[in-house]
Amino acid sequence: MINFASDNASGVHPRVLAALGRANEGFARAYGDDRHTAEADAVFKTLFGDDIAVFYAINGTGANVLGLKSLVRSYHAVICSQMAHINVDETGAPEASIGCKLLTLPSPNGKITPEQVKPLLAAQGVVHHSQPKAISITQATEFGEVYTPDEVRALADLAHAHGMFLHMDGARIANAAAFLGVDVNAFTRDAGVDVLSFGGTKNGMMFGEAVVFFNVSANPVPSSDFPYLRKQNLQLLSKMRYVSCQFAEMLRDGLWLESARHANAMAQRLARGLEAVSGMTVVNRVEANEVFVAMSPERIDVLQEQFYFYVWDASLHQARLVCSFNTTEAEVDAFIAAAATA
Amino acid sequence: MINFASDNASGVHPRVLAALGRANEGFARAYGDDRHTAEADAVFKTLFGDDIAVFYAINGTGANVLGLKSLVRSYHAVICSQMAHINVDETGAPEASIGCKLLTLPSPNGKITPEQVKPLLAAQGVVHHSQPKAISITQATEFGEVYTPDEVRALADLAHAHGMFLHMDGARIANAAAFLGVDVNAFTRDAGVDVLSFGGTKNGMMFGEAVVFFNVSANPVPSSDFPYLRKQNLQLLSKMRYVSCQFAEMLRDGLWLESARHANAMAQRLARGLEAVSGMTVVNRVEANEVFVAMSPERIDVLQEQFYFYVWDASLHQARLVCSFNTTEAEVDAFIAAAATA
Amino acid sequence: MINFASDNASGVHPRVLAALGRANEGFARAYGDDRHTAEADAVFKTLFGDDIAVFYAINGTGANVLGLKSLVRSYHAVICSQMAHINVDETGAPEASIGCKLLTLPSPNGKITPEQVKPLLAAQGVVHHSQPKAISITQATEFGEVYTPDEVRALADLAHAHGMFLHMDGARIANAAAFLGVDVNAFTRDAGVDVLSFGGTKNGMMFGEAVVFFNVSANPVPSSDFPYLRKQNLQLLSKMRYVSCQFAEMLRDGLWLESARHANAMAQRLARGLEAVSGMTVVNRVEANEVFVAMSPERIDVLQEQFYFYVWDASLHQARLVCSFNTTEAEVDAFIAAAATA
Amino acid sequence: MINFASDNASGVHPRVLAALGRANEGFARAYGDDRHTAEADAVFKTLFGDDIAVFYAINGTGANVLGLKSLVRSYHAVICSQMAHINVDETGAPEASIGCKLLTLPSPNGKITPEQVKPLLAAQGVVHHSQPKAISITQATEFGEVYTPDEVRALADLAHAHGMFLHMDGARIANAAAFLGVDVNAFTRDAGVDVLSFGGTKNGMMFGEAVVFFNVSANPVPSSDFPYLRKQNLQLLSKMRYVSCQFAEMLRDGLWLESARHANAMAQRLARGLEAVSGMTVVNRVEANEVFVAMSPERIDVLQEQFYFYVWDASLHQARLVCSFNTTEAEVDAFIAAAATA
Repeated sequence: MINFASDNASGVHPRVLAALGRANEGFARAYGDDRHTAEADAVFKTLFGDDIAVFYAINGTGANVLGLKSLVRSYHAVICSQMAHINVDETGAPEASIGCKLLTLPSPNGKITPEQVKPLLAAQGVVHHSQPKAISITQATEFGEVYTPDEVRALADLAHAHGMFLHMDGARIANAAAFLGVDVNAFTRDAGVDVLSFGGTKNGMMFGEAVVFFNVSANPVPSSDFPYLRKQNLQLLSKMRYVSCQFAEMLRDGLWLESARHANAMAQRLARGLEAVSGMTVVNRVEANEVFVAMSPERIDVLQEQFYFYVWDASLHQARLVCSFNTTEAEVDAFIAAAATA
Repeated sequence: MINFASDNASGVHPRVLAALGRANEGFARAYGDDRHTAEADAVFKTLFGDDIAVFYAINGTGANVLGLKSLVRSYHAVICSQMAHINVDETGAPEASIGCKLLTLPSPNGKITPEQVKPLLAAQGVVHHSQPKAISITQATEFGEVYTPDEVRALADLAHAHGMFLHMDGARIANAAAFLGVDVNAFTRDAGVDVLSFGGTKNGMMFGEAVVFFNVSANPVPSSDFPYLRKQNLQLLSKMRYVSCQFAEMLRDGLWLESARHANAMAQRLARGLEAVSGMTVVNRVEANEVFVAMSPERIDVLQEQFYFYVWDASLHQARLVCSFNTTEAEVDAFIAAAATA
Repeated sequence: MINFASDNASGVHPRVLAALGRANEGFARAYGDDRHTAEADAVFKTLFGDDIAVFYAINGTGANVLGLKSLVRSYHAVICSQMAHINVDETGAPEASIGCKLLTLPSPNGKITPEQVKPLLAAQGVVHHSQPKAISITQATEFGEVYTPDEVRALADLAHAHGMFLHMDGARIANAAAFLGVDVNAFTRDAGVDVLSFGGTKNGMMFGEAVVFFNVSANPVPSSDFPYLRKQNLQLLSKMRYVSCQFAEMLRDGLWLESARHANAMAQRLARGLEAVSGMTVVNRVEANEVFVAMSPERIDVLQEQFYFYVWDASLHQARLVCSFNTTEAEVDAFIAAAATA
Repeated sequence: MINFASDNASGVHPRVLAALGRANEGFARAYGDDRHTAEADAVFKTLFGDDIAVFYAINGTGANVLGLKSLVRSYHAVICSQMAHINVDETGAPEASIGCKLLTLPSPNGKITPEQVKPLLAAQGVVHHSQPKAISITQATEFGEVYTPDEVRALADLAHAHGMFLHMDGARIANAAAFLGVDVNAFTRDAGVDVLSFGGTKNGMMFGEAVVFFNVSANPVPSSDFPYLRKQNLQLLSKMRYVSCQFAEMLRDGLWLESARHANAMAQRLARGLEAVSGMTVVNRVEANEVFVAMSPERIDVLQEQFYFYVWDASLHQARLVCSFNTTEAEVDAFIAAAATA
């Protein structure tokens, strides 16, 4: 079987594994008071500047829920796409952990727009309605597309004009950065993002996500609450060095971008190949590391015998194919060949 | 500096690290549908029999909160020692995640008794009071002492007679098993424990705890809720193989007990040595891997320059010294020598 | 000003006020252990049979949230109309108090169908998704329309076939019963409803709703949890007699239906009159006590100077007009006349 | 039977009942946008000055939980007496609704002191512990004793010096004010209380408590959150006029104090009488409207045949006798006489 199911079915990058081994030497104070965590903090500040606060969470749901929980209270609402991971793939964790409501917007490609958000703001100030307080977007989206810096900034400006925050679920932020080819700050800090889930797991780490708060000198409260919320919500790892050393290795010299560029390139190769196969229709704009392709149900069945992947929308016969840091050209070509003969 | 601060300041056992490396070969389905998790399930059933359900959590607070959340609802109360980790070291996670109340009992050594529990049961059936529904005990306790099988059974019998469950926080269950020298079932499954947090992190794993439900054929509901509660409460790791492979390695041939026996032996050596030092008073019964020792504040200051450890009770000048799988006789002897000259 | 804004802007029926005065004689044990509550329980059993459990809540949001909370846990989802009061007018109380997710269905008239519900059931058993566990419908709906007994039964059958419950928000159940002209059991107990919020406030009571659990001998758990959940969630009134005496008065001899019939008749008169006015379009099927009418924004402005009512949908220029037990024919006719000349 | 069980077993003061009847004339906008609520706001500002925000809740648990929820987040702790109503008589509502922990202090008479609080503040800043953020005191206490203005101020000063708030559960604030004989501001606003539950139900209202925030110009956040928290937590009454008209009547000309003075006087008469009876020991300082008296269990049994009252502490054979606005001298004397002959 060859894996196109998910970037979290892939393993750990060899350099990350080696870093974990090196971090095992000697003892380290627990809960983050160690040199690996100091080093990870430093590489994040190199990337995003000094006016941030960064914390390490264990998994993507944890990073998202905690980032949002530091921004909103139970009577608030978070506006997001219907397709958002926080809405469909976290078993209601935001509602359970924060108590807030998600206000969801239809979005065929996972992106939302200021025009969609505006009508929801009529609820502000009406005591019977959950109060919109944050917009959450996913970069790259669950449908493999990428917000431009301008698209992010438009949402941030709207949010800030109405006393709200902009949260970014960056589980695949590396793939977005690789696609856009701009400094990561261009579509995060500089575009007005307030809190970012900076993904590690899907990009070749064993586990671990970072929650980055921007502009903390002007807005200190959310990040000062964070450590307590993290512990209380089960996301504080005692042997913290084993999270932070992975980030230090990923960010030290650009491994995070290099891995994402490779995964994106494999997705491009896969999309180009499948577009040439009769009866295969690539249905998303392939901008990150995911290809969504429509085909006959019979073909899906045949291909699933050799390849591990998910049917994204059964009614539309759309399959999702995800490439990773370690997807090879041979694996991609094998899929294309199998698709052509299926 | 030499570490006597905590077993979670120690690193990862070399065999566990090697197992993590081996688990990295190829891809593995996410969220536990992989061969490493199947193997871990199998070793747990070898240990505890087939009538269990076992799930892997990420950290100790997660294992405890989820185990309890599968047993109780918000209007219930959990009875525990005032010293219990769930009461003092989890930043109110049980209250926040479950919504329940903890009813705490004074306990100088961390153990509670049926006689202490009984008066609290008068609240059962009174609508104005949180309803006692579970007793939670820590094995070994936070003060390094160990419940005997009979002591556990007495609490389980009381719980069951009143429609309640018995939960065991076994963050240091290996140390308890090593001390008691009996089959681990003698003080868990066979003594009436309903749900067990089976600790891994403090015993040389990188991270990971198991939640074990006993007697599931007769009592299927709590464990059937568990997977959803785990995901919703941020404790489901996507790359699950990296948790389960550690447990498989630890349990396959007794490494968990071997490591605990070593840590316990080092604690005994430390206690025996300190008892011989004038002005040093070992204040707990050293049964597991922790030594609590009273000394003058000046001595604490001097020793903390060379050794990393915590002051457990500042008003009583009690220090806590924790031994681990990799504590050496030389480290122990160095502490004793320093104590004698401090 | 004349009130067509809401049935909760109307006051208290004189007979209910008199009953409150009579209940004030002497002392009464608190929290429901009194003869007024016993009498209310008895009249409810006369209405719905003996296999019920009935509890008194204070307001509609309380009754809905508590009824649902006794059915579902945090990882569950409740399926309802987008227009449902629990979704739009309770400030996220279900999410905050239960922790669950609401899965909402588009519904121009507030009614949902089994065909809409079915696709959502694909989430059952998938650990990443909130688990559908209850369907909640509003009778009469927020748009003033009424489910037939067959429509209710179809939803109940679907729910029960998939291990789910059917909850009915009956804030205006009296208006529905009056419209249908059948025994109230025909569209509640006998149609498969599991839990019912039986409204009082909007039908001329000062405050108070009843939560009725059906078929409790077969399904005892939800109602046995209820008293604790009610107290914990702030809905237990200490001087309970002042809730229960109102229900006893309302149900003793049919005042609840008589009041609803009057309100419905006034709504019919209003709708018939407005349909004859040029430029006025009644947009709902007027089945209960609400008339939704589209008109020009200028007319809305003029009419709001003399009459108190809400604009339901500003973009569609739809006004909502609500009749109550004490709406008079003269008031209705005054509105029609004003509309004709506006 | 004669009632000494509770002030919430007493009925409604005739003047309050009459006010409810008068408030029933005509319609009133729902949710507090009515003249009765405006009038109640005005009488509260007459009492406490203009720099307050006042909101009406339905019951005492609601007022306490919402007042506290506006002050603290889930990772905070509230410090209170073990005997506090929020700890023992609200079925864990603070934990469930706020998610916070209660840190309880032993207190034989329900009062706590700064000296007891101080050791708990060591937890501030330690991420593993719930963070103390509020002190909650009950005035008069559950044991019928009253904090002096100086005692309140000492706790407020300590709270404020450590970034915390002082909350007062004033379910029996009228009895405290009547006992102290000072302006109510002396032991609330002027003593540093931040949020006050101002009780109505136990003092002759049908239902209703007020939550008063002091010093809101300097500290606007908690009270600005309150309306949303109130609605979301099931404490917003739609027909609000029926709460507010009661407070307006109670406060307009001092009925609240007059009723409390009477209840206190009856408690004094009862205590003086019982002290003269052999075998009866009044065990509290009778400062408000409650008398706690120890007697033989046989006597308790005999007296409970004629009088309705609770055994407060079965192990100590202590009964609690509560006087109300409508307790009569004859009733008191009947109890004393019966006690003497029992």
